[in-house]
Amino acid sequence: MSQSPPTSLTPLDEPSDSLPKGFRFAGTACGLKASGKKDISLIVTDRPVVAAGVYTRNQIVAAPVVNSRSKTPSCSIRAVVTNSGNANACTGQQGIENAQAMCEHLAGFIGCDPEHVLVMSTGVIGVQLSMDQVKNGIEKAYKVLAASTENFLEAADAICTTDQSLKVVTRAITLEGQTVKVAGMAKGAGMIAPNMATMLAVITTDATLDHQQAQTMLKTACNESFNRISVDGHTSTNDTVLLLASGEAGPELSVEAQTQLQQELNQLLNELAKQIVLDGEGAKHIMAIQVCGAEHDDDAFIIAKTVAASPLVKTAITGGDPNWGRIVSAAGYADAHISPEETCLEICGETIYENGTPVAFDAARLSETMKSNREVPIVLKVGRGEGTAKYWSSDLTTAYVEFNSEYTT
Amino acid sequence: MSQSPPTSLTPLDEPSDSLPKGFRFAGTACGLKASGKKDISLIVTDRPVVAAGVYTRNQIVAAPVVNSRSKTPSCSIRAVVTNSGNANACTGQQGIENAQAMCEHLAGFIGCDPEHVLVMSTGVIGVQLSMDQVKNGIEKAYKVLAASTENFLEAADAICTTDQSLKVVTRAITLEGQTVKVAGMAKGAGMIAPNMATMLAVITTDATLDHQQAQTMLKTACNESFNRISVDGHTSTNDTVLLLASGEAGPELSVEAQTQLQQELNQLLNELAKQIVLDGEGAKHIMAIQVCGAEHDDDAFIIAKTVAASPLVKTAITGGDPNWGRIVSAAGYADAHISPEETCLEICGETIYENGTPVAFDAARLSETMKSNREVPIVLKVGRGEGTAKYWSSDLTTAYVEFNSEYTT
Repeated sequence: MSQSPPTSLTPLDEPSDSLPKGFRFAGTACGLKASGKKDISLIVTDRPVVAAGVYTRNQIVAAPVVNSRSKTPSCSIRAVVTNSGNANACTGQQGIENAQAMCEHLAGFIGCDPEHVLVMSTGVIGVQLSMDQVKNGIEKAYKVLAASTENFLEAADAICTTDQSLKVVTRAITLEGQTVKVAGMAKGAGMIAPNMATMLAVITTDATLDHQQAQTMLKTACNESFNRISVDGHTSTNDTVLLLASGEAGPELSVEAQTQLQQELNQLLNELAKQIVLDGEGAKHIMAIQVCGAEHDDDAFIIAKTVAASPLVKTAITGGDPNWGRIVSAAGYADAHISPEETCLEICGETIYENGTPVAFDAARLSETMKSNREVPIVLKVGRGEGTAKYWSSDLTTAYVEFNSEYTT
Repeated sequence: MSQSPPTSLTPLDEPSDSLPKGFRFAGTACGLKASGKKDISLIVTDRPVVAAGVYTRNQIVAAPVVNSRSKTPSCSIRAVVTNSGNANACTGQQGIENAQAMCEHLAGFIGCDPEHVLVMSTGVIGVQLSMDQVKNGIEKAYKVLAASTENFLEAADAICTTDQSLKVVTRAITLEGQTVKVAGMAKGAGMIAPNMATMLAVITTDATLDHQQAQTMLKTACNESFNRISVDGHTSTNDTVLLLASGEAGPELSVEAQTQLQQELNQLLNELAKQIVLDGEGAKHIMAIQVCGAEHDDDAFIIAKTVAASPLVKTAITGGDPNWGRIVSAAGYADAHISPEETCLEICGETIYENGTPVAFDAARLSETMKSNREVPIVLKVGRGEGTAKYWSSDLTTAYVEFNSEYTT
């Protein structure tokens, strides 16, 4: 991978204490969103950085996914450009060209190879981007790039669509005397929102990683986080999670320190993932589903995912109904072995089903607890195996249905 | 399989012209339903008949499923006893004994072996049956058994729970000069309704079949019908479909005539299945999803099922929204191969997506058509293969969510 030309951005402003070194951010509005809200987000690095990417598994993929996917992992990335308000999905050859043009336009300002710019889009499907607006937006954002917290938040804001809240997380970790910083931003409120699409996330860090390490770490962390959430189970055409590592914190980490960093990344992505579920379209509660006792972790995962996706479980949580029958029977139709006679269920810490038999409990009191807590913990034991899994899911409310049905293309 | 003792029911009343010969029916109320509606349903045969059964694939199975499943296929069945209002599911050893006691009680009146009585239950999960009520109900129903259409409809009524309408179908088919009659009844409005469970169906016919033929025919017909519908994708603990063949129409059928009967059965079960979707909890519209061009029929089935289950597709149909992005992207995340560049979509006969590209169409007019039709046909071509599949699904409305969340155990 070739090195890109040196940055044209000098002098560098001082990064915020909470942000990793080597990154500048900007978010601005270019008119893609009729509301006038921010819709162009830039992350530009001071020097070429290592970048890893994890993308949607949907067979129908948006143009920016095709573009970025071909460029990661890499050790020469200079920038990520994201637009919201238009997903550039199902847009054919023109869409492919537009995604590339976004990279080229930003590369022109940076003075780097367009191959070293990644691109993400989120918003309406099947509509061509207004490239004049996008190019103006990129120029406008480029001029205000800064390493400040304010700019970081503006960049995070500019990737949002139907999100009700910003989803960001920052962390400083001491690894072998080095202070490694990580800052992540994400968006997403439905796997596909009404005329919007996608969950997107970018994690920046100043840790020193090679591109294969970064790719493995990101994949592992995604499997522990973004792949364990469900709002409506609909995998978008645009899902993208990127990890950028500038290496400015210090020398390469030992294997031990890398393991520690992996754990921190898992946790950090998990926090972002949980923010997406908390902001799920119409969600009043979220379920924290824990499955244990399965034969393997994979089995536990399938069971947790099946319970998380059941509309009857979701509506039970909406209504504060400790309806163990719906939860246990959802586990029973999951494509993984369970042992019905050993199945136990706890909701909000209360055992209501034990070894295949209902347990007497104060339903009214438990219902009150479920209703008054934003987060409803569900612990499901399905046998005596070692397999465990966690999963986050939002409930299903009339607001979700209204939101997604009272809209016409 | 041993023969049961001769029937104690003589003389037989004359069967209704539309019903197969050899069956009597009754539906009555015994108090399991607080509403006082019918909750005990009997089908008693004049002589031992062939019976086949298809049951839930849920690993958590109700006691009546355990009971009936062990008895089919059979050539000695004398009766089916069904209660509604209580699913006898997750009820442990006591539940197993109660299901057996239902068979024994009815067998006592008939004078047959309890092994020749099948049992089904539907209703609330995790509550023991009040056996005094059930036994009184069986006695009461037994006394009024008749082969009349009125009794058939009462028996069909007595298996219902949250159903808004009776689901019955009858047919007379001429096969090699024989008039074979088939009469089916079904219930189900959600795979699991709020405090109710299950889809149940019983198909009676006077065709002559051996028990293996009956089992194969029923399984084939179920795969073409009840396994191709979705209200909420939640497989119940009690799902049961039975086929009873009395053989009173005439001698054994030729292979050709059997093939014809199979086709009629497929269609007949499909009609019952469609009635369940039409009566789906809160449903305003149903989708008739047709997938073609897949590599195999199995692939087409998986794609159709995935589209049918997507909450975003369902809410689009609720809103009369010709949102091809949601449908095409749901196909894209199905666990079966699609060819994005060859994917085409028609809604209500109008092509709106062709070979991976959106087609200009009058969205307002199509939306009006979708809104004004109870049934919305969706035709999705995913490549050039020979694989096809059909699937029925209800839409997702606020009424579904209210119905399933505004209830507390």
